[in-house]
Amino acid sequence: MTGYTATVTVRLKHGVLDPEAETTQQALERLGFELEDLRAADRFEVDLEAKSADAASERASEMAERLLANPTIHDYDVEVAER
Amino acid sequence: MTGYTATVTVRLKHGVLDPEAETTQQALERLGFELEDLRAADRFEVDLEAKSADAASERASEMAERLLANPTIHDYDVEVAER
Repeated sequence: MTGYTATVTVRLKHGVLDPEAETTQQALERLGFELEDLRAADRFEVDLEAKSADAASERASEMAERLLANPTIHDYDVEVAER
Repeated sequence: MTGYTATVTVRLKHGVLDPEAETTQQALERLGFELEDLRAADRFEVDLEAKSADAASERASEMAERLLANPTIHDYDVEVAER
């Protein structure tokens, strides 16, 4: 077994309204920053032991599907690195 | 001017308690997943126009310092990619 860190990024699907990101963008603009768009996402870094990077990635995807993401409104991606 | 996407990742500093991450980890364990640790972070993807990748990165760092991160409890890093 090897130690891996799986990074799961959970984003709102295209077309789902994100009032938090909109408010953040407006606050930055009010501070004088110029930007075209801002998207917010959640990032989970999961340390786990697995037999291979593929196994770690599969387990992290299952975690996303069961708990970390809501498939109705979220997309997610998983990146795995050895610790 | 070129279009860039700056990704700002905002993490709690080492030692700052994160009850949300702890609860998420416990929920995953209750679902039968084995994991050693889980850390949560916020990720902001900012689309902006700048003269160079360095200029875009500098502007995104300033956004993090002024609004996106709280320097008392957060660390942040910035990655820039051309759009």
